[in-house]
Amino acid sequence: MNMDKQNIFWQIQDGALPAPPAAVTLGMRFTAIDADAGTLETQFQAKPEFTNPAGNIQGGFLAAMLDDTMGPALAATLAAAEFAPTLNLNVSFQRTAKVGVITGKGRVIKQGRDICFLEGELYQDGHLIASATATAMIRRLTV
Amino acid sequence: MNMDKQNIFWQIQDGALPAPPAAVTLGMRFTAIDADAGTLETQFQAKPEFTNPAGNIQGGFLAAMLDDTMGPALAATLAAAEFAPTLNLNVSFQRTAKVGVITGKGRVIKQGRDICFLEGELYQDGHLIASATATAMIRRLTV
Repeated sequence: MNMDKQNIFWQIQDGALPAPPAAVTLGMRFTAIDADAGTLETQFQAKPEFTNPAGNIQGGFLAAMLDDTMGPALAATLAAAEFAPTLNLNVSFQRTAKVGVITGKGRVIKQGRDICFLEGELYQDGHLIASATATAMIRRLTV
Repeated sequence: MNMDKQNIFWQIQDGALPAPPAAVTLGMRFTAIDADAGTLETQFQAKPEFTNPAGNIQGGFLAAMLDDTMGPALAATLAAAEFAPTLNLNVSFQRTAKVGVITGKGRVIKQGRDICFLEGELYQDGHLIASATATAMIRRLTV
């Protein structure tokens, strides 16, 4: 683990960089971060503007929440010059979600030199609503 | 194909029902619809509020656009009392996307009595930026 508190993730947590707009849009905040374990927990505000014709949260917005739960679990562990775009995101929807609070759990399953495997789940009112796996690739800025 | 112009999809197109909030949030409109072929084309406005720390569109919002491209391709074909929640959404990210116009193509690959298989792609400035497959299940309202 070559975690570096100067990476983008920690600069955002420290307030040195602003929160990413996508996270603000999703009403996201971190409720637990363990960079050594490669795990974190999130909380989102599922808003009326995320709903489908049935009045449930559109699945794609749940996918966005999962991406914003798994990605940071990896980002927290990176060195300052590293970033890790998602290559693939695979989401299964177990239950409809309503407007309101959604919580997330994300973790790094395997961190290779380049390729990393991630997992995450979303919950509402104690029920599993969606789960995902993702593949990400660590890239290094060369200066 | 038991398409029924009284289904929710066509009621929205006809203005009898409002556009879904998720589609409004994504700045979505349809540019082509062929319900007989099970295909359609979409256009989205990728907004600054969808960006990640690198200033690119967060992958999850691209997943939401793909869900809103593939889901309607199926929804356009359904009978009035049918709806089709997504069970699984698998997205691959080929290229970073910027704030601006994104176009989508979605299609029904196989429509069974219950289980349907969908595909879709997103493009920006002529380049493929993300592709997806989805599995959806047709449910019928019983009254």
